[in-house]
Amino acid sequence: MSLQARMYSLGEIAERFGLELKGDASRQIRGVSTLASAGPDQLGFLANPRYRSQLATTAAGAVIVGPQDAGEIDGRKTPALVADEPYVAFARVASLFESRSAPAAGIHSSAVVAESAHVSAAASIGPLCVVEEGAVIEDGAVIGPQCCIGPECRVGAQSRLSARVVLVDRVRLGRRVIVHAGAVIGADGFGLAFDRDHWIKVPQLGGVSIGDDCEIGANTTIDRGALEDTVLEEDVRLDNQIQIAHNVRIGAHTAIAGCAAIAGSSKIGRYCLIGGGAGIIGHLTIADRVTITAMSLVTHSIREPGEYSSGTPIQESRLWRRNAARFKHLDQLARHVADKNKGHPHE
Amino acid sequence: MSLQARMYSLGEIAERFGLELKGDASRQIRGVSTLASAGPDQLGFLANPRYRSQLATTAAGAVIVGPQDAGEIDGRKTPALVADEPYVAFARVASLFESRSAPAAGIHSSAVVAESAHVSAAASIGPLCVVEEGAVIEDGAVIGPQCCIGPECRVGAQSRLSARVVLVDRVRLGRRVIVHAGAVIGADGFGLAFDRDHWIKVPQLGGVSIGDDCEIGANTTIDRGALEDTVLEEDVRLDNQIQIAHNVRIGAHTAIAGCAAIAGSSKIGRYCLIGGGAGIIGHLTIADRVTITAMSLVTHSIREPGEYSSGTPIQESRLWRRNAARFKHLDQLARHVADKNKGHPHE
Amino acid sequence: MSLQARMYSLGEIAERFGLELKGDASRQIRGVSTLASAGPDQLGFLANPRYRSQLATTAAGAVIVGPQDAGEIDGRKTPALVADEPYVAFARVASLFESRSAPAAGIHSSAVVAESAHVSAAASIGPLCVVEEGAVIEDGAVIGPQCCIGPECRVGAQSRLSARVVLVDRVRLGRRVIVHAGAVIGADGFGLAFDRDHWIKVPQLGGVSIGDDCEIGANTTIDRGALEDTVLEEDVRLDNQIQIAHNVRIGAHTAIAGCAAIAGSSKIGRYCLIGGGAGIIGHLTIADRVTITAMSLVTHSIREPGEYSSGTPIQESRLWRRNAARFKHLDQLARHVADKNKGHPHE
Repeated sequence: MSLQARMYSLGEIAERFGLELKGDASRQIRGVSTLASAGPDQLGFLANPRYRSQLATTAAGAVIVGPQDAGEIDGRKTPALVADEPYVAFARVASLFESRSAPAAGIHSSAVVAESAHVSAAASIGPLCVVEEGAVIEDGAVIGPQCCIGPECRVGAQSRLSARVVLVDRVRLGRRVIVHAGAVIGADGFGLAFDRDHWIKVPQLGGVSIGDDCEIGANTTIDRGALEDTVLEEDVRLDNQIQIAHNVRIGAHTAIAGCAAIAGSSKIGRYCLIGGGAGIIGHLTIADRVTITAMSLVTHSIREPGEYSSGTPIQESRLWRRNAARFKHLDQLARHVADKNKGHPHE
Repeated sequence: MSLQARMYSLGEIAERFGLELKGDASRQIRGVSTLASAGPDQLGFLANPRYRSQLATTAAGAVIVGPQDAGEIDGRKTPALVADEPYVAFARVASLFESRSAPAAGIHSSAVVAESAHVSAAASIGPLCVVEEGAVIEDGAVIGPQCCIGPECRVGAQSRLSARVVLVDRVRLGRRVIVHAGAVIGADGFGLAFDRDHWIKVPQLGGVSIGDDCEIGANTTIDRGALEDTVLEEDVRLDNQIQIAHNVRIGAHTAIAGCAAIAGSSKIGRYCLIGGGAGIIGHLTIADRVTITAMSLVTHSIREPGEYSSGTPIQESRLWRRNAARFKHLDQLARHVADKNKGHPHE
Repeated sequence: MSLQARMYSLGEIAERFGLELKGDASRQIRGVSTLASAGPDQLGFLANPRYRSQLATTAAGAVIVGPQDAGEIDGRKTPALVADEPYVAFARVASLFESRSAPAAGIHSSAVVAESAHVSAAASIGPLCVVEEGAVIEDGAVIGPQCCIGPECRVGAQSRLSARVVLVDRVRLGRRVIVHAGAVIGADGFGLAFDRDHWIKVPQLGGVSIGDDCEIGANTTIDRGALEDTVLEEDVRLDNQIQIAHNVRIGAHTAIAGCAAIAGSSKIGRYCLIGGGAGIIGHLTIADRVTITAMSLVTHSIREPGEYSSGTPIQESRLWRRNAARFKHLDQLARHVADKNKGHPHE
């Protein structure tokens, strides 16, 4: 991968990130890569034990490893940076080599900005953006091309919106929030009342409050609250195509994988991990440090930390069909077995 | 929640919506809220019995309740509006306090409108919209910022599109249709023919027809038909991130929750309720008044009204793994039990 | 369905596509339709045996059929075009009647194109597009309204982007690629490292490489790789609202239905068919010619071609609840049956 960023010596990198260096401090590094692909001017890393064998064969100019692997390294052959958390150290070092420079502050001439909007002189508004009445864009915020910042929305300092993000209405982003392309934050929640023979729309009057350091994935949707706000606490991380319904509250440091969905008014704890495609129905409470595995459906509140799952394992369809057909009569089967057992006390 | 809308007396509200008033008709109301949060100038409501206990403690200036709860209210302490359907009454009253005014009619100077498009003088076209050849925008329609109205598309009277909606091709919206940000209506259906060793695209020549009073959620997609139209009858309500494939037909008054998907050519009845993340495979027929629970997969037509489900319950993963492992051999287990039962006729 | 395209005689159509004609070569055809709806100037087709009975009753001016059905046709009443693969022949013939003409080459005056971007004089850039630094748009490419082509992205010759497509960063599309409205290609992958008590973002430095003749559905998202590229080989077909995570590789000619999701670094083979809403967790390998049925979750690598499924069948919820409750104790039930069987050796 060609990168335009400048080179750094291993010594500079070790000092900047407080890493222990084994080997030649003067070696020049111009990028990062995998152990399998790294060349002599690139830094590789070992975070996942399954790749340990590649340490012996990598052509990397240097490697980031944990203390447990440092012993195996011959620093004369392959210099090493030793970190307690090699993946964290890699993430920090890799950021040196991000070549994309932040756009200059200012409002692009093609953007449409309402009179009553307040845009910091130190913010950047990209081409063909719309900034509506009463919106506030704080210092250092970067609004990508074709974004729409709706009425009374606020984008906090140093936040970065990619292309074509929409903040619909009464959305407040904290500081250093990252929002990826196509996300829609603050659309009306799905509020309906059934009036004899048809639906009437329940006005959605709340907003959305997103804490500092949150990240929102591409084409993810977060609805505004019905009366009070939908809330993400700080450092919540959402992948792509996630649906967060009205009045959901997500605790700090919770991470949610792609295509998961959380229904209205559910409260998710802190430090939770929600797997891809998982679903949580409405009005539930999920404790802190709960993990939900991929594509599981949560239908009751979860009070205890731990890992939870639903579903059945993947099988050849030929076998699966037979088992699935039996599932339709599982209660009958269980009652049948219990009957057989009459008079033979068991467990 | 601060609202800029004007105040209304309880008497005015009772009269306007035909509600029975218990207590001081002169009390001034400036907004709506939950029983737990409402202040003395706000109206609370009780629609969900789980919140009944809050009636005694609410600081609301007045409450909307059903006849069954009206007795508990001391109108001198907390005035009450009594409604047969309190949630419906709340929805109507809340609409009084929606502060957002409709944008003025006219075409924003930054919009790009084709010569052959017909835009009513009483419609509003927002900034940076594109309206293509032969498109028609009827009286009172409001097209939000950055929308794209494709060739030969029609937006019916009083319909409202939020920001960045795309009507791709041959899409017809009825009257009073609401479409939320990021929705894509009228993209090609997924039509492929396998030609020996590769795919060829099957031209998608149909359109999309959306009935009066439908609502389409944020980032939802509704594909155009292959030959005939994809059809939503009137008052169909779609939440966010729903996928409606080509040639689907959805009956009037059916409501579908977020992330559900309906495959090609399936026909859904009237007054159905489809849960979040549910899936319906192609070429099926679903009767009227069918409810599908969240994340269920429908693999055959459903002829009778009622509620239908699939999947397994959420459990601690440690227990779930054991049960899931047994599911892979459930047919064997059932046959085994049947064998044991030879010669012992049972039920 | 009214179409503006010109008319063709059956003789012209038969010759152009190498089909055997039974009946009047001079009959004029102005469009295609289903057997049920086709009129005397339209061509119907029979590809799905379930519709065979309509051959006798169709009012179509002519029909496309397979050799096995050709015998039933009286060419004097209903002329027939006989094709080994009637659906493939229909797809080819239908393309004659697509009325939409390609937009003229050139850059719309409202588009914002960076100095350093290279746009072929034979390409078309629609209204309100943004083309950023270093982007390349090749001959005959058509970029629809409001698209954003990010830095260093390349759109190959004859590729067509619908409205509001975003190529975020370092995305390379091959030739004849079709991308539907709202798709986001090249957003950051979901890369996080947990640093004691909070998340830090892992820089995403790779790109996305899309092969020739791929098709990407509306609101689908394909993330850029962390270090190396996310790759779709040629002729990969993705429906709407699909999520492809960073560093996924999808083999040539694989087709994936709506709302499916593939997690990071998984490798999918060639000629696979992935059903709607299916999920594939990260770091797996799926062999060539594997079919995954709708809403199945793949949690381990699949080495053999074939069809695979997970989940349980849809049932009335009343019955389903009983069976689902038993699933929670299925391991206990199986052990119980095994105990009963002690001393009675069985299979």
